[in-house]
Amino acid sequence: MAIELFNNGKHLCVIFDDLVDDSMGAAVQANQFLIVDNNHGALIDPGGNMTYNGLLMGMQKYCSSKGLDYILASHADPDIIASINKWMIHTECNVLISKLWARFVPHFCSVGNAEGRVESIPDEGMNITLGNCVIKAIPAHFMHSEGNFQFYDPISKILFSGDMGASLVHHTEVDTPVEDFKKHIQFMEGFHSRYMVSNKICRYWVNMVRRMDVESIVPQHGRRFEGKKMVNEFLNWIENLPCGVDLMTQDNYRVP
Amino acid sequence: MAIELFNNGKHLCVIFDDLVDDSMGAAVQANQFLIVDNNHGALIDPGGNMTYNGLLMGMQKYCSSKGLDYILASHADPDIIASINKWMIHTECNVLISKLWARFVPHFCSVGNAEGRVESIPDEGMNITLGNCVIKAIPAHFMHSEGNFQFYDPISKILFSGDMGASLVHHTEVDTPVEDFKKHIQFMEGFHSRYMVSNKICRYWVNMVRRMDVESIVPQHGRRFEGKKMVNEFLNWIENLPCGVDLMTQDNYRVP
Repeated sequence: MAIELFNNGKHLCVIFDDLVDDSMGAAVQANQFLIVDNNHGALIDPGGNMTYNGLLMGMQKYCSSKGLDYILASHADPDIIASINKWMIHTECNVLISKLWARFVPHFCSVGNAEGRVESIPDEGMNITLGNCVIKAIPAHFMHSEGNFQFYDPISKILFSGDMGASLVHHTEVDTPVEDFKKHIQFMEGFHSRYMVSNKICRYWVNMVRRMDVESIVPQHGRRFEGKKMVNEFLNWIENLPCGVDLMTQDNYRVP
Repeated sequence: MAIELFNNGKHLCVIFDDLVDDSMGAAVQANQFLIVDNNHGALIDPGGNMTYNGLLMGMQKYCSSKGLDYILASHADPDIIASINKWMIHTECNVLISKLWARFVPHFCSVGNAEGRVESIPDEGMNITLGNCVIKAIPAHFMHSEGNFQFYDPISKILFSGDMGASLVHHTEVDTPVEDFKKHIQFMEGFHSRYMVSNKICRYWVNMVRRMDVESIVPQHGRRFEGKKMVNEFLNWIENLPCGVDLMTQDNYRVP
């Protein structure tokens, strides 16, 4: 369902957590996000073709499609922006994505649809003006994608963390935040061990996030972490997790 | 144009190198591949929506769409399989892709179109029967994608290497193989340094490929490497390239 994560009357953050049909287990559950500030909207990771209609309808309560300034894409996977051709046709928004993927976005589109509407985020990140606020594109390269950004909203103090902190659960379980961190690890561990690229990178990210004022970490899959205590539990866990290339050996590279 | 890389009358490998409109520099050039064995076809990395019509038309000379058994996907990026919804509708083929991405493929599709037609390749790779031959899915994880496969054809001895060996050039330059390796490095170095995940992984891959009987390395972007001498020049180069997380420091993870 659509849940307001923050609302002060002028600035609003909404999560949509049930638009993916994951009933058969064939498609992975994914969250989509809308930030609205003074009637200007940005969608974060609006998802694939399955979520397009539901999200377009669902967002109208908070922001008209005409008020949509941006699609902010953490990276270029199908569950992130495979619907981009439709958004390009039906709205006037621009797409912001890592410079590593800007020239790949047109492959989602019919010829010409993305022309002049894809903006590259440089590796060091950037500040994005939305209405009267600024959303920060935070470097998160190799977590998992090579050119990867998270989006931090200094008003709600939410870090929209993309795949970092993702858990693989059914959409009916996503409405509420994580309550028992230790019990939640089982839904994160397999994914983070295999998809996150290396522990070294995770540690750089943790060092950066510890210096930020983060009240919630809200990932693109599964349940969110609310409150500084829970945010710290996640940081402490991921900081110590061997993952990705740390675990690969020559045995993983053999002719079948 | 469509170029026959191999043809013995019963077994055929074709590259399509000019279907992406890269005239404005907005979209990255990409190659698509067709293998046909005794009238059974497999497309490797058929690409996005831009290449669908051209590839569907271009392949008919070699194999009817009804004879298309498989789409073999190296990973799940838009230039690899963003056209998958159309292939699902217009042909009866199945998609083979890393088990890491199988549950992400439906996000490219309208609800139900991919149901029962996505087969997971396990991390150790697999042998794929096509007509009377076997195509081998070769582990290439983290080069660049976390769950990543190359496809080796033991008859033509071609290794379809996905992003490994990719060069960023205009499509008019792709018709011919690399002639001067040293001069070609400038078109590969930036891409491999940033997108390939670590030198450790590249070395595992090189060790594996050195034990295989590879006559050509044919990447998904740019020019191909033909003959054992040129294949070895590429292996020697990539074996010694620092890349990806090797080059990242805390400086790359700072709040903008």
